[in-house]
Amino acid sequence: MAAPFRMTRRIEFADTDMAGLVHFARFFTFMEVAEHAFLRSLGLSVVVVWEGENVTFPRVHASCDFIRPVRFEDELDVELAVETVGRKAVHYAIEMRLGDEVVARGKLTSVYCVIREGGRLEGREVPVALRLRLQPDRPIV
Amino acid sequence: MAAPFRMTRRIEFADTDMAGLVHFARFFTFMEVAEHAFLRSLGLSVVVVWEGENVTFPRVHASCDFIRPVRFEDELDVELAVETVGRKAVHYAIEMRLGDEVVARGKLTSVYCVIREGGRLEGREVPVALRLRLQPDRPIV
Amino acid sequence: MAAPFRMTRRIEFADTDMAGLVHFARFFTFMEVAEHAFLRSLGLSVVVVWEGENVTFPRVHASCDFIRPVRFEDELDVELAVETVGRKAVHYAIEMRLGDEVVARGKLTSVYCVIREGGRLEGREVPVALRLRLQPDRPIV
Amino acid sequence: MAAPFRMTRRIEFADTDMAGLVHFARFFTFMEVAEHAFLRSLGLSVVVVWEGENVTFPRVHASCDFIRPVRFEDELDVELAVETVGRKAVHYAIEMRLGDEVVARGKLTSVYCVIREGGRLEGREVPVALRLRLQPDRPIV
Repeated sequence: MAAPFRMTRRIEFADTDMAGLVHFARFFTFMEVAEHAFLRSLGLSVVVVWEGENVTFPRVHASCDFIRPVRFEDELDVELAVETVGRKAVHYAIEMRLGDEVVARGKLTSVYCVIREGGRLEGREVPVALRLRLQPDRPIV
Repeated sequence: MAAPFRMTRRIEFADTDMAGLVHFARFFTFMEVAEHAFLRSLGLSVVVVWEGENVTFPRVHASCDFIRPVRFEDELDVELAVETVGRKAVHYAIEMRLGDEVVARGKLTSVYCVIREGGRLEGREVPVALRLRLQPDRPIV
Repeated sequence: MAAPFRMTRRIEFADTDMAGLVHFARFFTFMEVAEHAFLRSLGLSVVVVWEGENVTFPRVHASCDFIRPVRFEDELDVELAVETVGRKAVHYAIEMRLGDEVVARGKLTSVYCVIREGGRLEGREVPVALRLRLQPDRPIV
Repeated sequence: MAAPFRMTRRIEFADTDMAGLVHFARFFTFMEVAEHAFLRSLGLSVVVVWEGENVTFPRVHASCDFIRPVRFEDELDVELAVETVGRKAVHYAIEMRLGDEVVARGKLTSVYCVIREGGRLEGREVPVALRLRLQPDRPIV
């Protein structure tokens, strides 16, 4: 697997809830932010023109295990790796840490879609060139 | 002024922050929910076709005074009144209460816009028929 | 399994993102709202006194499959069922529908915790009486 | 007035709504993030011990004028200045820009409170030493 993509994020007041911890749904947004920063690091974006068509990557699955509490002003390390690129979907694994401690582990599956008129999404096979950009060290099967 | 539009909203866990109270930015979303429910009660929506054009009402101003704390599971009464309909803008006043106690008072100004190609917004005068729908008891000046 | 708990929720403008759909992280908040409404329907709350101690139910796992797009002003039917009550955790299954169409299916696992001084959480076995309240028709194993 | 505090923020997908723009309520969170980063830059935090008491700064007023649209991946420059420190409140002015263009201007008023038992907040006069930390170049009136 290619070296994972890394970013940090400081927890904001609006990320917390009355339990004094980061609200669990926010971790999914943190994963998405990492996914988009990763795409940006490849010169892509979540809405991009590829071979003349507008393409996007809507999510079809997301999951997260919450292992330790995270609090206001904590500096969260977020690490995202492309696990596999399937025929139509990209599978990410995300690990979040505070220092050496893993605080959450998640999965995200995004599908490759072309945006048709009226905003309708149409699933497509991930083009080989994009697949290589997402996983440069993986031979095409 | 016409009788104000009323709705209630139960505070959700995700509305709270680590202070144990509703996060202040959420009150702006509550105001917007009341504005949209009011438009819906008139047979309108925030994105609507009016006289053959797609129109929308983006906000140009919002303000709120936070008077008393609001907590998880509180039943918030939200009351929205059209204060004035200007040439191009609708001015709302919103009052939020828990029982008899006012907890927040806000203002919202939305402008009347036509959506042009590419999503560009173009400000326009509020049509007289729409003005009457928003303020049925106010004579046109 | 007991009859599932049902609620509806109208999609708000702030639930949407620039793709014109409900943002995927919002579905996790919808699941939580259903969980809390379910607990409330049993006379419980997410922070409650049980046998003289303050108890709460933090999440340790959440997942969701996103099946069909959901849009502004849609009326979402949310159905929550207690799948199993483990020794220390409650496992929920959630199905979200628009009319007859399933749009998302999720899982939520919440653990039973006592709140100690300073807000520290301590995992505990789910008391039998609470287990019966959560799953009235399931024999204790 | 002291030189304003500056930070940047890249717009995230979850900040946008179906109009394709940053949702108006998010700007209030951006203001708060700037306020907290400013306090942190002074060695303070939003919940801090001051002269042996736990103090915090809840908001009593917030307003914003929305001047130009802001979109996904835009790099927002946020500039926060302490306008005045009143007897019990700190008044901030916030300006948000994309490059040279002002996109939003806001105000935030936070009051100085001591946190009493049970989380009850008690308004207090801003101590002189704190006032000086917030506005080092302003003579005490």
